[in-house]
Amino acid sequence: MPLPQEFHDLARRVNNWGRWGPDDELGTLNLITPDVVRAAAATVRSGRRVPLALPLQQDGVQNGMILGRVNPLHTMVAINHELFGPGTVAVSDDTVTMGLQAATHWDALTHVSHSGRFYNGRPADIVTPHRGATALGIEKAAPVVSRGVLLDVARAHGTARLPGGHAITPEDLDAAEELAGTTVRAGDVVLVRTGQLQHYLAGDRDAYAMPSPGLSLRTPEWFHARDVAAVANDTLVFEAFPPEIEGLWLPVHALHLVEMGMLQGQNWNLEELSTACAEEGRYAFLLTATAEPFVGGTGSPVAPVAVL
Amino acid sequence: MPLPQEFHDLARRVNNWGRWGPDDELGTLNLITPDVVRAAAATVRSGRRVPLALPLQQDGVQNGMILGRVNPLHTMVAINHELFGPGTVAVSDDTVTMGLQAATHWDALTHVSHSGRFYNGRPADIVTPHRGATALGIEKAAPVVSRGVLLDVARAHGTARLPGGHAITPEDLDAAEELAGTTVRAGDVVLVRTGQLQHYLAGDRDAYAMPSPGLSLRTPEWFHARDVAAVANDTLVFEAFPPEIEGLWLPVHALHLVEMGMLQGQNWNLEELSTACAEEGRYAFLLTATAEPFVGGTGSPVAPVAVL
Amino acid sequence: MPLPQEFHDLARRVNNWGRWGPDDELGTLNLITPDVVRAAAATVRSGRRVPLALPLQQDGVQNGMILGRVNPLHTMVAINHELFGPGTVAVSDDTVTMGLQAATHWDALTHVSHSGRFYNGRPADIVTPHRGATALGIEKAAPVVSRGVLLDVARAHGTARLPGGHAITPEDLDAAEELAGTTVRAGDVVLVRTGQLQHYLAGDRDAYAMPSPGLSLRTPEWFHARDVAAVANDTLVFEAFPPEIEGLWLPVHALHLVEMGMLQGQNWNLEELSTACAEEGRYAFLLTATAEPFVGGTGSPVAPVAVL
Amino acid sequence: MPLPQEFHDLARRVNNWGRWGPDDELGTLNLITPDVVRAAAATVRSGRRVPLALPLQQDGVQNGMILGRVNPLHTMVAINHELFGPGTVAVSDDTVTMGLQAATHWDALTHVSHSGRFYNGRPADIVTPHRGATALGIEKAAPVVSRGVLLDVARAHGTARLPGGHAITPEDLDAAEELAGTTVRAGDVVLVRTGQLQHYLAGDRDAYAMPSPGLSLRTPEWFHARDVAAVANDTLVFEAFPPEIEGLWLPVHALHLVEMGMLQGQNWNLEELSTACAEEGRYAFLLTATAEPFVGGTGSPVAPVAVL
Repeated sequence: MPLPQEFHDLARRVNNWGRWGPDDELGTLNLITPDVVRAAAATVRSGRRVPLALPLQQDGVQNGMILGRVNPLHTMVAINHELFGPGTVAVSDDTVTMGLQAATHWDALTHVSHSGRFYNGRPADIVTPHRGATALGIEKAAPVVSRGVLLDVARAHGTARLPGGHAITPEDLDAAEELAGTTVRAGDVVLVRTGQLQHYLAGDRDAYAMPSPGLSLRTPEWFHARDVAAVANDTLVFEAFPPEIEGLWLPVHALHLVEMGMLQGQNWNLEELSTACAEEGRYAFLLTATAEPFVGGTGSPVAPVAVL
Repeated sequence: MPLPQEFHDLARRVNNWGRWGPDDELGTLNLITPDVVRAAAATVRSGRRVPLALPLQQDGVQNGMILGRVNPLHTMVAINHELFGPGTVAVSDDTVTMGLQAATHWDALTHVSHSGRFYNGRPADIVTPHRGATALGIEKAAPVVSRGVLLDVARAHGTARLPGGHAITPEDLDAAEELAGTTVRAGDVVLVRTGQLQHYLAGDRDAYAMPSPGLSLRTPEWFHARDVAAVANDTLVFEAFPPEIEGLWLPVHALHLVEMGMLQGQNWNLEELSTACAEEGRYAFLLTATAEPFVGGTGSPVAPVAVL
Repeated sequence: MPLPQEFHDLARRVNNWGRWGPDDELGTLNLITPDVVRAAAATVRSGRRVPLALPLQQDGVQNGMILGRVNPLHTMVAINHELFGPGTVAVSDDTVTMGLQAATHWDALTHVSHSGRFYNGRPADIVTPHRGATALGIEKAAPVVSRGVLLDVARAHGTARLPGGHAITPEDLDAAEELAGTTVRAGDVVLVRTGQLQHYLAGDRDAYAMPSPGLSLRTPEWFHARDVAAVANDTLVFEAFPPEIEGLWLPVHALHLVEMGMLQGQNWNLEELSTACAEEGRYAFLLTATAEPFVGGTGSPVAPVAVL
Repeated sequence: MPLPQEFHDLARRVNNWGRWGPDDELGTLNLITPDVVRAAAATVRSGRRVPLALPLQQDGVQNGMILGRVNPLHTMVAINHELFGPGTVAVSDDTVTMGLQAATHWDALTHVSHSGRFYNGRPADIVTPHRGATALGIEKAAPVVSRGVLLDVARAHGTARLPGGHAITPEDLDAAEELAGTTVRAGDVVLVRTGQLQHYLAGDRDAYAMPSPGLSLRTPEWFHARDVAAVANDTLVFEAFPPEIEGLWLPVHALHLVEMGMLQGQNWNLEELSTACAEEGRYAFLLTATAEPFVGGTGSPVAPVAVL
């Protein structure tokens, strides 16, 4: 099924191709300017650090729904190994095998394509079996250190967790922005909380996977209008799932990654942050969330920290 | 060969066991207090962000010298896969296998033990084949967001790169601190630059591995006296290698990780940072370098960023 | 809970320690003598080859019940890669990550220990994190080319599949031997069919895992009396599961691997073989089932073939 | 550089497309008929079993020359783990990550393509990132149990090891066949010994890799004329390397795999077999060498055994 006209109309309205030059691989991360970084550092008040990454473990969020996206398998290759003989200093060492997007992660701009194109018009064949993404790989992403804003949609709705399938609207974002008491501005990284992760934290991976609340087709314009640098949330699929329009799969991915050139994050744990922001009465903070530079990666685990 | 008396004397002088309670798993990361974090944020002047991680790739720094510490093997599991039929949004996805300490990383407090003990007296058997580190794993580390100070020992020596085998002394650190124009203080993360990474950047992994300059047995006291939170450098082994005292392997690891409970980092790329600090005329900055929370991990890749 | 007296009594009766010398690592594979091999080759009549391995795939038999025993993750590292320029011969290449005992496999003699000992009295510490099994690893196993005998217990019971939990008795084996029309003898590899694999073949991994029919505590003596070289079956756990005696886990493993020094195989697909043997009216054949020589492996995938 | 006319002429002469029907995925393994298997079993005389697989280990034959073809990384996930409480039976378990063609292996018919085609005219796009080889994968290969014939070219030359770069000619094969005292016939699996593996066995991986003796462009016709089922040898690259004709890379691969539909094997250890055949004065035997059925695999490790 071809993409519908509605999608193409939206695509045209949020498109950033060429905006930062024909060779740009950063997309909206260009919006994190030195001024933005300085202002972000200046938001720090209490010095409280809130980590947003899920533990990386075999018992992670992947339930097998996505082929090949394996939970981290951690194995030891040395345990208290006295490399240099009995009584000497002993070494432990380990390895991991995992899907780069298995846990708390950023999607790289090469995670999805549509109509044969990635961001900035790069052709689909830049992703190769041998070298992965030969352009727009996650190692090209700029360091993510900027102002973060929590849009706590669940709290703004007065609920612990949005219902499965709830497609977050621009009006939902407006309400959460009002709760936040700040205006989302250029270069911000927006964290959208649904509460869906509570399913996983309670031990139910299948309920976490789907049906899931998530961003609706109408939200990319909201982010585009404000020149947001990146968006992350606390769900497996990021957008409402199953999809809002039957047969139109992952349209928000396509709008963010391909049209806007904007990183998006999934499986971020926003529960403690929700509490911290409510306690401190402010929802803007310094956010550090730099991707691991996997060469050719179409995504990367990330260990984000909000500094309040 | 048992550890010599000299080692045990040093161990006693830098020991932090019990300092933060008998159950503490944070060690010197306790020194990154909210006040320290606030002050760190306030160091930001130019808003320039300098990434310190090496690219994660098959052609990484591991040359086979350390058994089982494999360079990242990145493989694709989907390329422009039209999951939902022809013409739909297409997905690319990938996996990695790697040693947790293969590239730019933090050693967890469980990376080394000596005399059957880890930090705070935990017994060696807390690291298990089945679950990895059941205490003191890298997932227990607090978020690393603090003031970073670059001690550019190579530059202070007036050289691009310290010679292989050079054991950095407290006097070297003093000289670099003077060059830095700041005083190292409690909660700082100290980055010690030797220039050794230039070998790897020039394509010579074997020369990078050894002989290598690195921290000497005399430096842990220097860090201990200043209550440093963590130390990282730009070498494979961290300490001078081959070792200063024949048969005494990895003593600095043992002092930092076991006695002090202090994270240490290796394979950090400090070249661009060296230039940036020299250009801006200051060597203190906001450092973000939070470990990926691998459950049971004895180390973790990290993507540190200095914000000047 | 310590092992009960009943177990220790059985252990004493089937014990082979020292039988082939104090340094022996082959165990009952010693029973496959050149004469046995010659006789095995002479059993070939029709020349029909029946493969007994399950396909190796992400959607394999492991359902997560056994921590770390991951189904094969197959990933491409090159696809039609024209290594030497456009128009040249193109190469595809791939990698796998898997549990060595994830699919159709042999347990090595180091797969289980009890009371701190492996076969022939080797101490538990011969299995190390750094090197795996430093003795009794799967790479020490002799080539398995011998006479195979199918004991089709399900068919002898007149059923397609034994009920979950059915503990196969010596009398069950006698009946299947009678159906087979041959006498099990020294050096034979015995394949015991329960039909349990049909659950997996029908798509139900959980039903396959447990409750499962399997060998009972009383069968090791039967195999020992006949000097069988190895035993395999078509279940995940090999022995009746949940166990026959509450709290006595994996006693058959301990008797076979530790006391007898006898390889055992799991997840063997005996369905086609059952049909073939019934069609040809004979249940003895040439069996080839040599383990992959993973150095230090406590098991190995195997691709067994029955040649009728 | 396009493939030269000489290659296309050879291709036409050895082509088997359509010979076993348009949908065939077995290629020359069709030649192993029940009669061939029966005759193969009848070659067994002494009952001596000679294993031909190299140990699977981190220190394997791959020296990094082939990107992504990683040596086996074996890691423990459980060591003497008393799953069910202290004093119970203890379990050890492990995993591996490896290139499917890293060690002793078979190339699947999908390992190489040329001019956009695989065996039997299948298009290049049957190999996909998501599913691997969706046709002609190694799991489609029939069990390899047939007559093996050792063509000991090194011995026939009166040397321990052919010189690097030596391209084996049809005349070399004739001489080795005469030494063997048997005539290669339909369905045989031919093992060609160069002695090159001695470099690896002596600890020199780089010398083993190249320059290497191997099969010349003129030998596929020799195998085709005799209707050989498969060919394996004791080198990394299989064919003479660097190539005989500058710029013509892997032509023998293309002729065997694409044109003939014939499996080929590399890194087989033929040293002990050479001695055994010389001692017994015969070079034909029962060979068992069935691939592990990796679904979608473009190759597979194999543990071949010659039974004399």
